[in-house]
Amino acid sequence: MSPVPGPRPGGRSARIQQAVHASTRKLLQERGRAEITVPMIAADAGVTPSTIYRRWGDITEVFADVAIERLRPETPPRETGSVRGDLVAWAQEYLEEMSSPVGRDALRDIVMSGDEARPDNDTKQNKCAGFCRIQIDTILHRDESFSATPGVTERVIDHVVAPIVYRILFDQDPLAEDRIEALVDSALDAAVHA
Amino acid sequence: MSPVPGPRPGGRSARIQQAVHASTRKLLQERGRAEITVPMIAADAGVTPSTIYRRWGDITEVFADVAIERLRPETPPRETGSVRGDLVAWAQEYLEEMSSPVGRDALRDIVMSGDEARPDNDTKQNKCAGFCRIQIDTILHRDESFSATPGVTERVIDHVVAPIVYRILFDQDPLAEDRIEALVDSALDAAVHA
Repeated sequence: MSPVPGPRPGGRSARIQQAVHASTRKLLQERGRAEITVPMIAADAGVTPSTIYRRWGDITEVFADVAIERLRPETPPRETGSVRGDLVAWAQEYLEEMSSPVGRDALRDIVMSGDEARPDNDTKQNKCAGFCRIQIDTILHRDESFSATPGVTERVIDHVVAPIVYRILFDQDPLAEDRIEALVDSALDAAVHA
Repeated sequence: MSPVPGPRPGGRSARIQQAVHASTRKLLQERGRAEITVPMIAADAGVTPSTIYRRWGDITEVFADVAIERLRPETPPRETGSVRGDLVAWAQEYLEEMSSPVGRDALRDIVMSGDEARPDNDTKQNKCAGFCRIQIDTILHRDESFSATPGVTERVIDHVVAPIVYRILFDQDPLAEDRIEALVDSALDAAVHA
């Protein structure tokens, strides 16, 4: 699907990004990523290949850029009435999304991105980790007994996010969903006893 | 460095693998991986490019294959007198190796490998996870109060291996080494209270 015509915020540069993203997503639905080339994306998006090379460097960065947009959270985490419940609900959704073929490919595309040498350190990998941090922080700030304890967010990342992502990338099977409650408890216990 | 001349176990096929690995390692020391091509490896290894394409498919699989050989453990984990101590020592070494530039590249090369569709499911990612499992199992079998409890290995993977790998791949900084003892304790506590 080509982007909807009409003016968009950010001008020409934003329009190019949107067109390239839309064409990449469309091509990814039609064929394997190994078959997709920069000239194919350029032709579909109505830009020149050199525009893409100049802006993204290579196709790996285009895929990673599209992956980041897929993973960017659109809503704050669901409220269930308790921090523990909110974390469990968020982690279950995160596991479900990330262990789908689209989620797994997005994680791999982000790992493959090679822009880690950029001076601002704002790599695709950091952005992806940052999305989780923001959602977890939002949950913890709903209850000051957690938000006032330093390091809880990092513990949730170590005990909950890391095993979800590690098993998707390295293991035959994703994390079993019924493990999530125990992992959230480990993160919160560790926080309480820190 | 070319492989040492002389007969090796496995015959022609093993010799080709060894030569291609050695040339890849040598080229990786000399230049960035984005500059390395299959014809360059072939020329250095004294094989034809089509031999490499036929056996590995593409350069991503050559890099992943070399990465697997780098990560294959050469010795059993160090004995310190206790399972907790052995796990802490092993995890500290694993963190140190994996967070070096060579270790990080090896992890990324393995994630990039696309051979997950192979019928035996023996993907590079599974192999990499398997190396950790074997080392952790070896440690746990030194004390039957742990080896007799089901699922302890998986808990060590969730609570110790996963955060080490996740932070290397996604975060600006690797896991702080002084977090390892607490993570090992989480894994063993969870095992005891399971």
